[in-house]
Amino acid sequence: MSQSKLKKIGVFTSGGDAPGMNAAIRAVVRTANYYNIECLGIRSGYNGLINGEVIKLGPRSVKNIINQGGTMLKSARSDEFRTEEGRKKAYEQCRAHGINALVCIGGDGTFTGAKVFSEEYGVQVIGVPGTIDNDIFGTDFTIGYDTALNTAVEAIDKIRDTATSHNRVFFVEVMGRDAGFIALNSGIASGALDILIPEQKDSIKDLFQVFRDAAKRGKTSSIVVVAEGEKMATTYELAEQTKKEFPDFDIRVAILGHIQRGGTPSCADRVLASRLGYGAVEGLRKGLTNVMAGIQANQLVFTPIEDAIKKHNEINQDLLKIAEILAL
Amino acid sequence: MSQSKLKKIGVFTSGGDAPGMNAAIRAVVRTANYYNIECLGIRSGYNGLINGEVIKLGPRSVKNIINQGGTMLKSARSDEFRTEEGRKKAYEQCRAHGINALVCIGGDGTFTGAKVFSEEYGVQVIGVPGTIDNDIFGTDFTIGYDTALNTAVEAIDKIRDTATSHNRVFFVEVMGRDAGFIALNSGIASGALDILIPEQKDSIKDLFQVFRDAAKRGKTSSIVVVAEGEKMATTYELAEQTKKEFPDFDIRVAILGHIQRGGTPSCADRVLASRLGYGAVEGLRKGLTNVMAGIQANQLVFTPIEDAIKKHNEINQDLLKIAEILAL
Amino acid sequence: MSQSKLKKIGVFTSGGDAPGMNAAIRAVVRTANYYNIECLGIRSGYNGLINGEVIKLGPRSVKNIINQGGTMLKSARSDEFRTEEGRKKAYEQCRAHGINALVCIGGDGTFTGAKVFSEEYGVQVIGVPGTIDNDIFGTDFTIGYDTALNTAVEAIDKIRDTATSHNRVFFVEVMGRDAGFIALNSGIASGALDILIPEQKDSIKDLFQVFRDAAKRGKTSSIVVVAEGEKMATTYELAEQTKKEFPDFDIRVAILGHIQRGGTPSCADRVLASRLGYGAVEGLRKGLTNVMAGIQANQLVFTPIEDAIKKHNEINQDLLKIAEILAL
Amino acid sequence: MSQSKLKKIGVFTSGGDAPGMNAAIRAVVRTANYYNIECLGIRSGYNGLINGEVIKLGPRSVKNIINQGGTMLKSARSDEFRTEEGRKKAYEQCRAHGINALVCIGGDGTFTGAKVFSEEYGVQVIGVPGTIDNDIFGTDFTIGYDTALNTAVEAIDKIRDTATSHNRVFFVEVMGRDAGFIALNSGIASGALDILIPEQKDSIKDLFQVFRDAAKRGKTSSIVVVAEGEKMATTYELAEQTKKEFPDFDIRVAILGHIQRGGTPSCADRVLASRLGYGAVEGLRKGLTNVMAGIQANQLVFTPIEDAIKKHNEINQDLLKIAEILAL
Repeated sequence: MSQSKLKKIGVFTSGGDAPGMNAAIRAVVRTANYYNIECLGIRSGYNGLINGEVIKLGPRSVKNIINQGGTMLKSARSDEFRTEEGRKKAYEQCRAHGINALVCIGGDGTFTGAKVFSEEYGVQVIGVPGTIDNDIFGTDFTIGYDTALNTAVEAIDKIRDTATSHNRVFFVEVMGRDAGFIALNSGIASGALDILIPEQKDSIKDLFQVFRDAAKRGKTSSIVVVAEGEKMATTYELAEQTKKEFPDFDIRVAILGHIQRGGTPSCADRVLASRLGYGAVEGLRKGLTNVMAGIQANQLVFTPIEDAIKKHNEINQDLLKIAEILAL
Repeated sequence: MSQSKLKKIGVFTSGGDAPGMNAAIRAVVRTANYYNIECLGIRSGYNGLINGEVIKLGPRSVKNIINQGGTMLKSARSDEFRTEEGRKKAYEQCRAHGINALVCIGGDGTFTGAKVFSEEYGVQVIGVPGTIDNDIFGTDFTIGYDTALNTAVEAIDKIRDTATSHNRVFFVEVMGRDAGFIALNSGIASGALDILIPEQKDSIKDLFQVFRDAAKRGKTSSIVVVAEGEKMATTYELAEQTKKEFPDFDIRVAILGHIQRGGTPSCADRVLASRLGYGAVEGLRKGLTNVMAGIQANQLVFTPIEDAIKKHNEINQDLLKIAEILAL
Repeated sequence: MSQSKLKKIGVFTSGGDAPGMNAAIRAVVRTANYYNIECLGIRSGYNGLINGEVIKLGPRSVKNIINQGGTMLKSARSDEFRTEEGRKKAYEQCRAHGINALVCIGGDGTFTGAKVFSEEYGVQVIGVPGTIDNDIFGTDFTIGYDTALNTAVEAIDKIRDTATSHNRVFFVEVMGRDAGFIALNSGIASGALDILIPEQKDSIKDLFQVFRDAAKRGKTSSIVVVAEGEKMATTYELAEQTKKEFPDFDIRVAILGHIQRGGTPSCADRVLASRLGYGAVEGLRKGLTNVMAGIQANQLVFTPIEDAIKKHNEINQDLLKIAEILAL
Repeated sequence: MSQSKLKKIGVFTSGGDAPGMNAAIRAVVRTANYYNIECLGIRSGYNGLINGEVIKLGPRSVKNIINQGGTMLKSARSDEFRTEEGRKKAYEQCRAHGINALVCIGGDGTFTGAKVFSEEYGVQVIGVPGTIDNDIFGTDFTIGYDTALNTAVEAIDKIRDTATSHNRVFFVEVMGRDAGFIALNSGIASGALDILIPEQKDSIKDLFQVFRDAAKRGKTSSIVVVAEGEKMATTYELAEQTKKEFPDFDIRVAILGHIQRGGTPSCADRVLASRLGYGAVEGLRKGLTNVMAGIQANQLVFTPIEDAIKKHNEINQDLLKIAEILAL
């Protein structure tokens, strides 16, 4: 698609919401405006595209949202868009509204939809990685990840206060169904005794040994951070098994849950989202399609959306070692 | 007990920990020091008293703790202190260490123990209300309550971001096994659609009606705040029943849990704790015993500890009405 | 004015803004709506009244503002309203828009204007105390005060980190031109070595002695909290004089400034604002005029607006003593 | 220096303190302990080295500090260490305590001292970049920078509340004597109208034009973020000149100051500090000297300390453009 054709951009957020999505929307809208490109906001992700829920967005429509969590365009997962019929409707809406390019803010699922749609209908699409899980290939950080980390760490800091006061063991579950980035980083940052993530084969015996070693060192309270997607067992099961092995332990479970998805975005997330939203429009202007905008080594880069979906960021092995060494 | 006998004060924290307990310990220690009264810290509540876990506390022992959550003296619930034998051991420790007065920071259970102990052994005791639940008669606020409210509200603000973005209904459970103060105040402050507390008879039909009315007004997402001690059903059951009634609702449950017990105390809690810690020592100097120090209408007051245990603060009826009116 | 005449309420914010003003506006609007009373928002305080900048406010106009700092109606100080001519224009606007009652959210100056206007034109007025300074008679707390305290204390906590690391003395100036409530409470809560407020006669010699005593006790870093309105000298002058007396001191000045006026309101401020906004409409419904809604001893009370202006809350003498005792 | 000689590490913090320094100390101490290397803490930077203020640090000495701002080892700038005599004393202390390797946590000045010392006396030295300014070559981020950014942005968010409510223009000065990283990133993140940094030639005419353009777009309040080291004029002068040009503007100045140096470190800073502290010990074990540990593209790297001192990270040109485009 040549650059001259870029007339009207549609922007939407899809999948799980993440702090900073609003900052990304704002950047898309204002960069488009800067280049005199019209911009439409599509509400509720692909569902809104199918149903034509679009609103005109000018530079003042996005004022005072850079510091707001959530997404002003709302988000949703769409079953209908997975059907050919659904996508056909979506394309008709694009034509009806004159949208010939889409900025798709979301994660894996969002990008998969974009790719298929682009291939079927030739609409120019560019992805922006917005998910707290940081599990997208092609960018060092995803939008919302840094904020979620801070939320998790602040919560664990609070839990530590009561853990220490009562000599308790807490199993704290953080988000991350498929990826342990939040668990590993928030665990290191909060001085967790152990960190359980889906990328690593964990054994309950190892965990018990960690507890025994800690007791020998005189540790009277502990935090174990567990990623939602830990494969060994659920967080509640881990707590129960530990209680059986160490009946004297005063054990509690804390599921941090959805607080990790909301909140005022951190500075890093706002800047990242601003750069990626800007980058997405620049990418569209250059005629790029089926790519994702990302930041690597502090530079804007574009990755084929297929790679963003299929490849995965590896857990940094140094971090695993650091987690073990520092948890004394 | 005459004033002249006050020689050595023991101070401890007992029961559930609360942010601000450290500020109260600091105030007890420094006020005692100001009056040249010795002060010993007793670790782990009544258990520490029984086992003689005492440490000498001078004014510098309590530096840099006013802003720390938890309690530097640790806390615990003690079964042994409920036995005559346990209390006898505790008294022997008091004698051995020369402690003839106790400042007991905690809640109902702590005060009950103090009362019995004082009656049996004549040790001068004064209570300081430290509990996030605010359910102690004789004080407008308990230490930790204000911080817990802010923690709950900040968490619900985050949840609202994601609730709004996804048009979801969230049932958010806050602490309060017997009292709805946290639920009612955090619910009003976070604009909850409904608030369920143990002090009020709630019916599931009323709740359903509230949802229906909200839907009519065009509300697409909602927060329902539920006190831990709500009698109608557990928070999970409420969510399930609501899902059955409104199958289209996208419902989530969030249990805020122990994050409400920790964290840097708010300014109000630090000042309150400072005043009550100071007040406790002043009370002991005046020869008071079996009373609790509290703040009412911004003045230091002393309430018979029996009243503090048996009587209860009523939920403000205005607040219930306000909650209903404002949840539009 | 009899109750039956209450038809249309105007609500505005005036004077310095304070966190929680939005929560108060929301409460006024929704309570009015509950009683089927129309409600108009007047922008930019008395200036907006004079110029007829009014907007219709329904229950959904005030959604998602309970947690927002600032004021959606904007605020201003008005010179024109101090003139007869200005007030005449304001009254004409009231008549033109059918406003026969005003809820005036602000401080001293706001209430003075309301009183004069009410006396001249018979418009029913009720005041709601919104100011971070807490210097309004007739209420235990003003809207915004608790949030400002937390902001100040969080800032001083940060400053303490660097003060301690570098063995420095910091003079921290907090807001409060006429009142030392913020200084006194944030000073106690942050463990300040000394607190200088306009209500107390301070002498530089006493301050120097405090520094000397602290040095003797081995204190290597200190925070002195100074109210903006301290009469002895400006904060910069105090720092200079101290440097002259103690040339070895590494002294820094921090003026906290306008960060104290903004930010997400605390739970206490949101609840207070909700109660007072509700109370103001209830007061109007009862036919009250020239009064201020306040909370005393946890109950809604109305105080003649003249008293609210002329009388003053006294600094609690206990707090002064506590500040001295605890600053060891 | 061969690996076998590494026996006893000295660690210290020097120069301006930064949040996360404690996490770095903790990582150095625990990693050393893991490898059975002794570790001594040197208090107050080079001064402490000269005066032999050293303490033995074991793994439990550094518990509960990962979340604390400031530095438990204190920091200072040292004039004496700039003299040959001072460094000679320092070396004698190293010999007396058996220290043959130093981990030097700080910025430019710290590294310069380390380099000279290493060259003169052959002590193995490794630098860890700890400064909020992010102006150290050889690492993508310095310890404390991310926290300082969040502190600045939270403060500016609060200021915006009051700026918007009163239609005011705020000049907000953030730290950065030589570098505009804090200003540029916090400015983008808070939606500043303009950002003035020392790396860019700014003109007052351009600033005035920015204000005029904003007024045309209907903007009624603005934030201008100014780096401490801005060369055009001081922040107060900028405000005065702007007032002369636009007499109707209601202009305020806010100097954020030392709050930017303190506070609980962010998750990113804690993880960064943990990685760099670990990396420093690994570097020493490999026999590296006169290098700085850094993180680039998420990998641990070592940079000659000379480069870290002499070279400079460039301001990202994309960010300058983004700042301009998004400030609508």
